[in-house]
Amino acid sequence: MFVFSNKLWLLGSFEWINDVHSFHGDKAFAVEITVDQDECESYPKADSSEKYNMSVSAGQASLNAETVWGALRGLETFSQLVYQDDFGSYFVNKTKIEDFPRFQFRGILVDSSRHYLPVKAILKSLDAMAYNKFNVFHWHIVDDPSFPYRSSTFPDLSAKGAFHPMTHIYTQSDVRRVISYARLRGIRVLPEFDSPGHTKSWGRGQPGLLTPCYKGGIPTGTFGPVNPASLSTYKFMKSFFKEVSSVFPDSYVHVGGDEVDHSCWRSNPDVRAFMQKMGFGADFTKLEAFYMENIVNITSSLNKTAIVWQDVFDDHKHCSSLSVVEVWRDGCYLCEVRRVVKAGLQVILASPWYLDQPGPTHNWARYYTVWPLAFKGTEEQKRLVIGGEVCMWGEYVDATNLAPRLWPRASAAAERLWSDEKQTSSVDRAFPRLADFRCKLLRRGIQAEPLYVGHCKHEYQV
Amino acid sequence: MFVFSNKLWLLGSFEWINDVHSFHGDKAFAVEITVDQDECESYPKADSSEKYNMSVSAGQASLNAETVWGALRGLETFSQLVYQDDFGSYFVNKTKIEDFPRFQFRGILVDSSRHYLPVKAILKSLDAMAYNKFNVFHWHIVDDPSFPYRSSTFPDLSAKGAFHPMTHIYTQSDVRRVISYARLRGIRVLPEFDSPGHTKSWGRGQPGLLTPCYKGGIPTGTFGPVNPASLSTYKFMKSFFKEVSSVFPDSYVHVGGDEVDHSCWRSNPDVRAFMQKMGFGADFTKLEAFYMENIVNITSSLNKTAIVWQDVFDDHKHCSSLSVVEVWRDGCYLCEVRRVVKAGLQVILASPWYLDQPGPTHNWARYYTVWPLAFKGTEEQKRLVIGGEVCMWGEYVDATNLAPRLWPRASAAAERLWSDEKQTSSVDRAFPRLADFRCKLLRRGIQAEPLYVGHCKHEYQV
Repeated sequence: MFVFSNKLWLLGSFEWINDVHSFHGDKAFAVEITVDQDECESYPKADSSEKYNMSVSAGQASLNAETVWGALRGLETFSQLVYQDDFGSYFVNKTKIEDFPRFQFRGILVDSSRHYLPVKAILKSLDAMAYNKFNVFHWHIVDDPSFPYRSSTFPDLSAKGAFHPMTHIYTQSDVRRVISYARLRGIRVLPEFDSPGHTKSWGRGQPGLLTPCYKGGIPTGTFGPVNPASLSTYKFMKSFFKEVSSVFPDSYVHVGGDEVDHSCWRSNPDVRAFMQKMGFGADFTKLEAFYMENIVNITSSLNKTAIVWQDVFDDHKHCSSLSVVEVWRDGCYLCEVRRVVKAGLQVILASPWYLDQPGPTHNWARYYTVWPLAFKGTEEQKRLVIGGEVCMWGEYVDATNLAPRLWPRASAAAERLWSDEKQTSSVDRAFPRLADFRCKLLRRGIQAEPLYVGHCKHEYQV
Repeated sequence: MFVFSNKLWLLGSFEWINDVHSFHGDKAFAVEITVDQDECESYPKADSSEKYNMSVSAGQASLNAETVWGALRGLETFSQLVYQDDFGSYFVNKTKIEDFPRFQFRGILVDSSRHYLPVKAILKSLDAMAYNKFNVFHWHIVDDPSFPYRSSTFPDLSAKGAFHPMTHIYTQSDVRRVISYARLRGIRVLPEFDSPGHTKSWGRGQPGLLTPCYKGGIPTGTFGPVNPASLSTYKFMKSFFKEVSSVFPDSYVHVGGDEVDHSCWRSNPDVRAFMQKMGFGADFTKLEAFYMENIVNITSSLNKTAIVWQDVFDDHKHCSSLSVVEVWRDGCYLCEVRRVVKAGLQVILASPWYLDQPGPTHNWARYYTVWPLAFKGTEEQKRLVIGGEVCMWGEYVDATNLAPRLWPRASAAAERLWSDEKQTSSVDRAFPRLADFRCKLLRRGIQAEPLYVGHCKHEYQV
């Protein structure tokens, strides 16, 4: 039952209390909540405490946390401790819990560019994230196929770059609604505006931003990545990220930097001239690094910390302005994690949790055997691994299949990111815990797919 | 747009008619329907005609069919011909259509034993089936894990064999509702009561039905397949199938016969004695054939034609009572199809359409390259291939993911089973057709997952 309470097996005393069905009785069951912090944090921070202590006894429970966010986590646990008997009475067992997350960053990436996700689908995902104690909604909001973010400074970006300028956009009010809904659940909204690659849709509403590609000395009419050789690019980006910084309250912003194709840059005479001028020779990774450094400087001048995909680190290890690197490539991802922390940078690990990839439901099991810290390194280096992220890219995913593809597989990742590593690594013992938790998700209206043959008391109703 | 009208490319004249937005105008657009058959068929038969002709011109359409079922198919096509412009006006193009199905049997198997599917989820699937011109709902209603069919003759079967005796069953009224809902959409309900294997759940409510397994001459307390050596078995089956025959109006019944494990039979002294008595030696396939022949005789005495899984044919090719064989095994399924038709039996092909198997959405493409008749054989033999079936087994599927896993991949199979083989075999040309049809399904509330990056005018609303 206690999928998400870390220390329960150590401290929980499972004494059955017959008279604690007081939910139905005359005397209301009381949950007393105390928060240590004098001033309420208005928005969850990267280092906000989520620790809480809870004690449940006859007729009452007391919950103490350092912050409101910790109190929210405790209430989530409490709601999962309550159960119903066959006659509909509610029960809770006597217990004592000390609980805190293993990793401070526990995210889900959702991609609203390859398919547009109606706001309601996003809010529903935030509900499910809260049930799973995820705390970062990484909103990969724009990409090549479409630009649904309705910028107030550059309205043409969505007017010309969205799948539809009216029905397939996120208005400022939509974005505020998502941020507010997330905040009330202790979830940060981390916006990603990926560049210089993955920007085809930007070009439609911002002429001159992308690099014109050439063939045989003549422009082909097609465009490549953002043009890093043009001063207007940086002027635009400064203005654009200024807006982003004021719209999204989080102190982090994801600036992408992955999978930049150099061939269009190479074809363009202006870009080549700029390379010459800058002394980059024929090394386009230097140009890419130059561009990313400018973007990171823009965001840091706006008091935001930039997060980048690992490509930026790989091509430009000694960039002094980097601070957080997201590792996403397959293969020996722990080797990469080690390289990043050895450079003194923080890591978010995504490689093992690409849940958009097709595969059987039962690959949930593999998520219990991910060990993000199983590399040779000092304690200090291991502390640089700040967490992990489930990625749900949008090529084959939209509101029709987002939920069953995420849940309950992401729950397995969530448990591993929150709970004690050794207590949760057994797949055999995880199965009934996860199956039960999946039924809880169904009960709450989350379309979580089955792990294997079986049933839930409350099946999903179409 | 015309995913499901066979001859459209041959006969359709795509003249644009500007004044046919009469849906909004003063004069109603009239669709005149005529049916040749004097007496209405009350239930669709295996050989019912689904052919229709339709002609659409300014202000009116006329639809003629031999049967009401053909008229339903024509109306479905008509509804798919209608489209909306950006201002919400409805249009239909002038056209002439002669349309008929390539195969008479176009089914979907749904498994309500490994997971219980609420009746609403089944009805929703029937809606989607009708939009896709599927005409057989193969209800794999019971299996090892649970027995949700609430038998009036043997109520203990579900009382003890269902996941829950009250909430996870199909009452007689539920079954009638499904049959009636299907009938109104021109869909036959083909019930499957699979035996002698896949029957663990039967044993709980019908003691003595299954074979007690032995080890070292002592019963282990576990049970194997239905006991073919006991007279009471056949008495029970006769009584049970009598009920099934009266509850399900279809003239076919699927009696299963797949994947029978002989080890428990082999361990049982009574079964071995029966083998001796019958002169079967040590050949348990003979015992299996004996059992299946008895079951087929029971159903045929009830005026029902039995359909069996290929295993029955494989082990017992010369069984005179067989008539329809469903080919499901992977590998060279056309070799198997050929073997079956050479024996003069009818074939339903399922092997290429196991859609419950995990896999990327984009494996829809492979369904356009299935050629059920691409084996060496006479015209007469090819006519014995009566159709195909999409299988959605329930190990990893329930109401949470049934729809996105079925659609639009099953639509690809549907088109191939209905439409002309050569006109629909190009994957490139199928893509926009299928993508558009998927948007139509979304518009109608079917949770059909995306084929690839893109959008629909009306996205699915959670």
